[in-house]
Amino acid sequence: MAITLVEMLDYAGVATFAASGALMAAERRQDVVTFVFFAAITGVGGGTLRDLLIGAPVFWVTNPGYAIVCASVGVAIFASRGRGLPKRALLWLDAAGLCVYAVVGAAKAQAWGINPVIAVVMGVLTATFGGVIRDVLAGEPSVLLRRELYVTPAIASASIFVLLAALHAPVVWASGAGVALGFAVRAGAIAAGWRLPVFTPKK
Amino acid sequence: MAITLVEMLDYAGVATFAASGALMAAERRQDVVTFVFFAAITGVGGGTLRDLLIGAPVFWVTNPGYAIVCASVGVAIFASRGRGLPKRALLWLDAAGLCVYAVVGAAKAQAWGINPVIAVVMGVLTATFGGVIRDVLAGEPSVLLRRELYVTPAIASASIFVLLAALHAPVVWASGAGVALGFAVRAGAIAAGWRLPVFTPKK
Amino acid sequence: MAITLVEMLDYAGVATFAASGALMAAERRQDVVTFVFFAAITGVGGGTLRDLLIGAPVFWVTNPGYAIVCASVGVAIFASRGRGLPKRALLWLDAAGLCVYAVVGAAKAQAWGINPVIAVVMGVLTATFGGVIRDVLAGEPSVLLRRELYVTPAIASASIFVLLAALHAPVVWASGAGVALGFAVRAGAIAAGWRLPVFTPKK
Repeated sequence: MAITLVEMLDYAGVATFAASGALMAAERRQDVVTFVFFAAITGVGGGTLRDLLIGAPVFWVTNPGYAIVCASVGVAIFASRGRGLPKRALLWLDAAGLCVYAVVGAAKAQAWGINPVIAVVMGVLTATFGGVIRDVLAGEPSVLLRRELYVTPAIASASIFVLLAALHAPVVWASGAGVALGFAVRAGAIAAGWRLPVFTPKK
Repeated sequence: MAITLVEMLDYAGVATFAASGALMAAERRQDVVTFVFFAAITGVGGGTLRDLLIGAPVFWVTNPGYAIVCASVGVAIFASRGRGLPKRALLWLDAAGLCVYAVVGAAKAQAWGINPVIAVVMGVLTATFGGVIRDVLAGEPSVLLRRELYVTPAIASASIFVLLAALHAPVVWASGAGVALGFAVRAGAIAAGWRLPVFTPKK
Repeated sequence: MAITLVEMLDYAGVATFAASGALMAAERRQDVVTFVFFAAITGVGGGTLRDLLIGAPVFWVTNPGYAIVCASVGVAIFASRGRGLPKRALLWLDAAGLCVYAVVGAAKAQAWGINPVIAVVMGVLTATFGGVIRDVLAGEPSVLLRRELYVTPAIASASIFVLLAALHAPVVWASGAGVALGFAVRAGAIAAGWRLPVFTPKK
């Protein structure tokens, strides 16, 4: 059951990030191959980094299902010609992928015996690096520098999950609470402009 | 014989990509150390990613020959002061490296027991990531976004190779056909402007 | 003793690079989370690449001490509001981290049985990639292209260390000589504008 939930969340995270990558290709009026390439890189980039770092076999290499999901998302968004993709879809899909992936990444790290502090780091990297790679390859200013809460919601999701798991909460509750809290923080950032104070050098 | 051919193609791919990296350094009027650095990163970047992803020991780490080839290419192009390097050389060297590497990457993945779908992906990553990293480090718009056929020829080369290998074609024929087809597609893109249709949002 | 010295240098390298990452965040007036993120990525980026390439467990994944050092450096620099951080601090901290890391990286590679040529390469990658990733994520022109001696001091540090180690010099002397020589080269580049001749195409 736990495994199955993590797998489901994993596919959901891959698909939402893949969509965010494909939408970046759509903004740039690219061809279908570039749609699929950006969908795949954004979809599996964060999880790939996590697996390399924790020494796990890279999840999509032994299971072609993930590559097929990414390719399908890329082709579907290309073929849709933008129907039903309002401009802000990129932002909200990215937010959903962010929180789901933060929990999935932390859960997988813990399943591989990684200590709780680094499990949170792995959740954050899993969640943020697909988008970071997407921005770098697209030549966009990295989402890291936009002064929005972006890494913070990922930290919230992964921390809550690791904390509740340490308290022996059922994995479905720990996952749900982690995703919900992180998403609330990210939603506040997107919809209400929530921010953290920025660095102000002393005169 | 099969091993030897793959090794020869591997060195050829490293050398051609190394040259393309060194030519990027030449465009920017860099010093010889930067020539060698860009030659090395472009030369081995794609294969390095492939090896990390499939869990193989990274090919150039245990065999200093590849680093020496990259350094030699970098020094030679620096010392040549541009003789015999017409402006389009970068483009055609990159095209050759692309198709050779796509086949080499797919072949190595299959030798490590990777399934055919992901072996094609590995061929494509092996072929394209050296150039992608070169562009990112040079601050160039990524070749991925140039609306040219670039990833597509790599897909063609790797797919043909994997398909013919599955049909038990001799490795030399499968490799040759893969490289030739991919190179033809890339040559069409460079010389005749071949393209795929791009995304056109509905009004 | 050897192990302990390498560990001490390792923490020193992580902390100095983390500071250089946090100072980049300070220049961009970011929030504390971005300070920590840039401190961490710059602090451990090069060593992470080294460990992945040589097939070692990634050093900070099994030991949360490094992540805690990076987070502390990021928070401390954020909280300091720039007191005691003259503008050139970024440059000199980066120089110190560069040479320390070049030696640490080469030493670890040799401890993992990597041949001397590639051990030098590993030293250089360990030393330079944290800064390269920092620049790429910050959207800065990569330090690689600034026509300054940057990779060269890392090569000097790693080569001297590997050479003296091969001559059975005590590790503390080999390390010290490597760091000192590389730092002298980098200091010459920063303070006196030392350069290598650049590529000049023939008319």
